[in-house]
Amino acid sequence: MRTVDPRSGIESLDRPTCLSLLAGEEIGRLAVVAGGAPVVVPVNFALDGEAVVVRTEPGAKLDQGVRSPACFEVDSFDRATRTGWSVIVAGRLEEVTPFDGPDFERLRALGVDPWVGPGRDHFLRLVPTRLTGRRIGPRS
Amino acid sequence: MRTVDPRSGIESLDRPTCLSLLAGEEIGRLAVVAGGAPVVVPVNFALDGEAVVVRTEPGAKLDQGVRSPACFEVDSFDRATRTGWSVIVAGRLEEVTPFDGPDFERLRALGVDPWVGPGRDHFLRLVPTRLTGRRIGPRS
Repeated sequence: MRTVDPRSGIESLDRPTCLSLLAGEEIGRLAVVAGGAPVVVPVNFALDGEAVVVRTEPGAKLDQGVRSPACFEVDSFDRATRTGWSVIVAGRLEEVTPFDGPDFERLRALGVDPWVGPGRDHFLRLVPTRLTGRRIGPRS
Repeated sequence: MRTVDPRSGIESLDRPTCLSLLAGEEIGRLAVVAGGAPVVVPVNFALDGEAVVVRTEPGAKLDQGVRSPACFEVDSFDRATRTGWSVIVAGRLEEVTPFDGPDFERLRALGVDPWVGPGRDHFLRLVPTRLTGRRIGPRS
């Protein structure tokens, strides 16, 4: 069922659609809070079920401690037609290191392959507590 | 002068380059902190000098109060060549309303034209305290 706000023209996307759109991308933007201020950076990612997995360096800016709240965004817009979509995943970040054994091996097998490196040998996993998406279509 | 980290291959972009890249885009992602957690949403924007201007509705999620810290991100990546750039603007959000007279008129004249609407009749202006950019080129 399509859910479109008649005033704004924005369509709300259901969870399967959000996950399908996420699965088709490999770069998103991850936001965390550092010192009371938001920090947002582009990251390579992959999905581990419904969780967003990012590979990073220990001590990186994104690494704000265990279970820190985070927000992840992926989008695609076409300026010519003014259409597009965005998916937003909110939740808490978990760190996964080699000490986590099978979890670490599974995440490593996802092939989250940073475009920059080397030395990015631990993972952050964002388990969604909220998964929302919106699509802006042509005005009807 | 090009500043490239030899380990990561990441080039740091100078301020004029960052501003020039920002000026060429019309969609970015704005992150604020709401209830201790980061919130990031895609937004249309324009530049007012070095400030990022976003048009929004009063009471919108981004509207976390006067002078709230915010982070704005714009990027462009090419998956085929694994190259691209990102620019990040950190600062504090100021609200600009019709009561601000000439300021409001100037921002309105920028033509920040949301793809969705109507009813977005006030502006948020992010005055940068930090403006940084990175480019990922082909590995040399």
